[in-house]
Amino acid sequence: MAVYTDVSEDELAKFIGGYDIGELLSFKGIAEGVENSNFLVHTGRGNYILTLYEKRVAEADLPFFLGLMEHLAQRGLNCPLPVHNKSGGVLGKIAGRPAALVTFLDGLWIRRPSTRHCAAVGEALAQLHLAGEGFKLQRPNSLSVASWRPLYEQARPRADSVQPGLDKAIAAELDVLEKSWPRGLPHGVIHADLFPDNVFFLGETLSGLIDFYFACNDALAYDVAVCLNAWCFEADHSYNVTKGRALLQGYETRRQLAAKERDALPLLARGAAMRFLLTRLVDWLAVPDGALVRPKDPLEYFRKLRFHQSLKSARDYGLE
Amino acid sequence: MAVYTDVSEDELAKFIGGYDIGELLSFKGIAEGVENSNFLVHTGRGNYILTLYEKRVAEADLPFFLGLMEHLAQRGLNCPLPVHNKSGGVLGKIAGRPAALVTFLDGLWIRRPSTRHCAAVGEALAQLHLAGEGFKLQRPNSLSVASWRPLYEQARPRADSVQPGLDKAIAAELDVLEKSWPRGLPHGVIHADLFPDNVFFLGETLSGLIDFYFACNDALAYDVAVCLNAWCFEADHSYNVTKGRALLQGYETRRQLAAKERDALPLLARGAAMRFLLTRLVDWLAVPDGALVRPKDPLEYFRKLRFHQSLKSARDYGLE
Repeated sequence: MAVYTDVSEDELAKFIGGYDIGELLSFKGIAEGVENSNFLVHTGRGNYILTLYEKRVAEADLPFFLGLMEHLAQRGLNCPLPVHNKSGGVLGKIAGRPAALVTFLDGLWIRRPSTRHCAAVGEALAQLHLAGEGFKLQRPNSLSVASWRPLYEQARPRADSVQPGLDKAIAAELDVLEKSWPRGLPHGVIHADLFPDNVFFLGETLSGLIDFYFACNDALAYDVAVCLNAWCFEADHSYNVTKGRALLQGYETRRQLAAKERDALPLLARGAAMRFLLTRLVDWLAVPDGALVRPKDPLEYFRKLRFHQSLKSARDYGLE
Repeated sequence: MAVYTDVSEDELAKFIGGYDIGELLSFKGIAEGVENSNFLVHTGRGNYILTLYEKRVAEADLPFFLGLMEHLAQRGLNCPLPVHNKSGGVLGKIAGRPAALVTFLDGLWIRRPSTRHCAAVGEALAQLHLAGEGFKLQRPNSLSVASWRPLYEQARPRADSVQPGLDKAIAAELDVLEKSWPRGLPHGVIHADLFPDNVFFLGETLSGLIDFYFACNDALAYDVAVCLNAWCFEADHSYNVTKGRALLQGYETRRQLAAKERDALPLLARGAAMRFLLTRLVDWLAVPDGALVRPKDPLEYFRKLRFHQSLKSARDYGLE
């Protein structure tokens, strides 16, 4: 929750002058998103979001992310549409950082999702998967199974300081995941980070998806597994099967899961839990003692992993 | 630069439902302001700022701050206007905190003020002082000379860790200020914190003043001294007399400074520098080693204090 880079009015005026979006009326840093610096830009023409890409986003990936948003929006998905500047491009530079301007989406993100919200996000995820067909650029998932062991090695020396036994538990799970990771499932463009703060609602109506900066090509069902982790657990860490069923049914109103995708779901959910456990663990250990800002709790995902390991069948997620 | 309190959609809907401002369309935390949590609220009726008052603002002072904004706005000053809820009040509660909704002001704050910006802020400050006449509530300045020694005592044990000799220099200056602090100057409502991030511009036209949460009753010329500190020094810590002259002339287009106010200016400027030096020093020392967020540099105000001490006459600020 931070703006990392401030922007002077001269730089901003020069940048906005490169777009045909009217007079600049207001400019405010938004306290959401941890990877980039985001600003709300209000002009005579409307509201926009200006994003400055900080070092955690590779500049070489930006054409994929921005091109994907344009591709999806043109196919009817409600997502931010990159605005073309007067030279026709969508990527500029401000304060020494790559920067892009996208349209503003109305809506609020839901702090406490209901079953209906879960159904809506399942449906929107399938719409994203279908709308992504035909997108020409490729980006492998840099946070899939091959990346987990290096992340584990990075966190390993101090993993047990977060919870005794964590090191060993992760190592054992990694052995399983590396050996059994599902291959040959239907592939396509996935969001890979569709957490509640990336989904906007107006009431119970889903109004848009944002933050495509982890999007990549991977198994579509892995994206479903990420969403089960992100949307269907309660604050007490219990899995809510009613929400899980709603999410999966919502998904299948638009795209049917194949038998092998259904069978793979528990392993994919374990993998998704491992991915967020590991990145959160590395971030957690990188923060000096006594810091005012604490990163997200890695153990939330360790508990979710334990749940997925305990499942007897994919039906336990609520699959019909 | 932080949102301290997040708000659930249920609480928000309930709160917004208490106002006659249309349907809620968007809600975003703003990464500006360090004392309170601020959110941009977009509804069918327009844009608003929702402020949740955190513990550094005393709840008993809120009627003064909100009443003052209404008083000033009604007298033609461009500042946020508190919105009355359906019960007629301007103060509510959300997430356990006192909260108020005010109108949104267009404009940007200026990171690198020019001489023209300084002239405009001088004029607006005088307009504020005149518009404040007749406001019935009173709030003494809790950060004036009587508060400085207790702040110094708080910072004293580690002051020299910030810069060797700082303890002794502050002690000597406090002796002077307590003995010679100007009394009997024209009093009224002052802003007391009119830094660049609290003044909005559209181009070179000042579009509004915000953040009245240090406003109080005190010598009007003290507010001028705060602005000289906040607006007229360059990044290399040198005083820009052209900017100082512009600010003072801008002020005097609306309100003439009395002879005794002019004479008092160097001492008032030393006091204003001391006030910000001390509060920044206390904040600086309160942050644990290694924290990701550093507070503002107290030594910036020590350098400004040294400049004010070196002046031979109030004319050195650019007074005609």
